[in-house]
Amino acid sequence: MRPAALIFDVFGTLVDWRGSVAREVGAAFRAKGIDADPHLFADRWRAEYDPSMAPVRAGRRDYVALDDLHLENLQTVLARLGLDHRFDAAECRALATAWERLDPWADVVAGLAAIRQVALVAPCSNGSVALMARLARHAGLHWDAILGAEIAHNYKPHPSVYQAACAALRLRPDQVMMVAAHNGDLEAAAALGLQTAFICRPVEHGAGQTSDLAPSGDWTLVADDLVDLAARL
Amino acid sequence: MRPAALIFDVFGTLVDWRGSVAREVGAAFRAKGIDADPHLFADRWRAEYDPSMAPVRAGRRDYVALDDLHLENLQTVLARLGLDHRFDAAECRALATAWERLDPWADVVAGLAAIRQVALVAPCSNGSVALMARLARHAGLHWDAILGAEIAHNYKPHPSVYQAACAALRLRPDQVMMVAAHNGDLEAAAALGLQTAFICRPVEHGAGQTSDLAPSGDWTLVADDLVDLAARL
Repeated sequence: MRPAALIFDVFGTLVDWRGSVAREVGAAFRAKGIDADPHLFADRWRAEYDPSMAPVRAGRRDYVALDDLHLENLQTVLARLGLDHRFDAAECRALATAWERLDPWADVVAGLAAIRQVALVAPCSNGSVALMARLARHAGLHWDAILGAEIAHNYKPHPSVYQAACAALRLRPDQVMMVAAHNGDLEAAAALGLQTAFICRPVEHGAGQTSDLAPSGDWTLVADDLVDLAARL
Repeated sequence: MRPAALIFDVFGTLVDWRGSVAREVGAAFRAKGIDADPHLFADRWRAEYDPSMAPVRAGRRDYVALDDLHLENLQTVLARLGLDHRFDAAECRALATAWERLDPWADVVAGLAAIRQVALVAPCSNGSVALMARLARHAGLHWDAILGAEIAHNYKPHPSVYQAACAALRLRPDQVMMVAAHNGDLEAAAALGLQTAFICRPVEHGAGQTSDLAPSGDWTLVADDLVDLAARL
C-alpha cells in the first residue's frame, strides 16, 4: 500500500550537518584567528546532541527546543576547548543558527519534489518548527507541514513524536512512511506500525563512518537515495 | 519595521469557503436528487462554526480538531432540515472534507508567493494541520509551516493561538503580522502586540454581506488584496 504521507528524518538523512556546520564554524574561527579543526568541532558539538535530549525523553526536564539545546551544547564545547571567552553571548547565538543553514545531499531537492507528487511530505525531526522552516528555506525543501519533536514536546525516538506526526495528518500509522538514514529511528517507527524506508548516508559522520552503513531491520523499502525512493513508491 | 513573518486567517481571507462549500454540497445534493439551495446550506453549516468552538475556548470541552466539528455541525444541519437519513456516516465524512477543497480568491496565489519572497508565511487558522495541509495542496499555497489552532489546542480569537504561532517561529509578537479580513481577528492579535493587516473580502458571505466591509481599528496596514499587501511591505 502506497503511503499517504512520508515523514523524514532531516539531520543526516536529508542534509549534510557535518560539512555545513564545519563550514560555518570554520568561518567563525577564521574571523577570530582560532586555529582549530572545524570538522572535529562539528563532531564534538554533535556528540552533545543526544545526551542533551535524554533528560527531556526521560521526563526529567521540560521540553526545550533544539535551538536552545544547540546553544547550550555550543557553549559546553567551547568551554571544554578553552574558547568560551572568545565568543560573547550574541556571537554564540549567531553561531548556533548554523543549524538553519545545512546543505541538502545532492539527490534531496529533486527526490523530495518527486515524492511530493504522490504523497504528503513533512519533516519528523528533532528540530523545532522554527529551525525546520528556516532550514527548508535554505535547502529548498517544500514541506506540506512541519511535524516532529515540537508538536509532541518530546524527542525521537520517543514514540510520542511519531504518533503525533501521524495524528497531525489524521492518518493511521500504517498510512505513513518514516524515512531515515538511521536504523534506530526506523526501529522506533516500525514498532508503532509505520511503514519504513532506509537510505544509506555513508559519509554523514565523515570518511571513517562505522554506523548505519546498511539496513539492520526488515524495512518496507531500502532505497539508494530520495530519487530512487520516489521511483519505488 | 517589516515583519519577519506574516500569519494568515484562511477561511474568508484567503479562500472562498461559501462558494466552494456550496459547489461541493450542490454536487452531493444533485447526486441524491435533493432540491435545496446549496449556498443557503453553506451559510447554515458555517453558522454552526463559531458556536461549536465556544466550549473549547471556554475550557468546557477538550480541544477537538475543526475537522470533527465540521462533521458534527454537518450532521446537526442535515438533521434540522430532515436530511440526515439521506446521508450515511461515510457519506457525511466525505462531505465534511469539502473544507479541504476551498478555492482561493483570485489574488491569493500570486500575492502569497510575492510575500513569501520577503518573509516567512504560515496560516494561523482555526483549521487543523491536516486540513490546512490538504487545503494548501488544493489551493496552491506554499507555506513555511502550518500554525494555528492545533498547535495551541484552542481556537481563535483565544490569545493562546496567536501567541503559539509567534512562539513556534521563535519571533516576538511585534515581528509578526496577522493578516485577516475580519476585524475581530485583528483586534485579538493587536492586543497581544502583533502587527496587523486588513484586507476586505466584501462577498465572503455573499452579495448581502454587512460585516467587515471596512477596517474598524487602527491596523498597521490596510490593503486591497494580497498582491497589494506584498507591494506595501
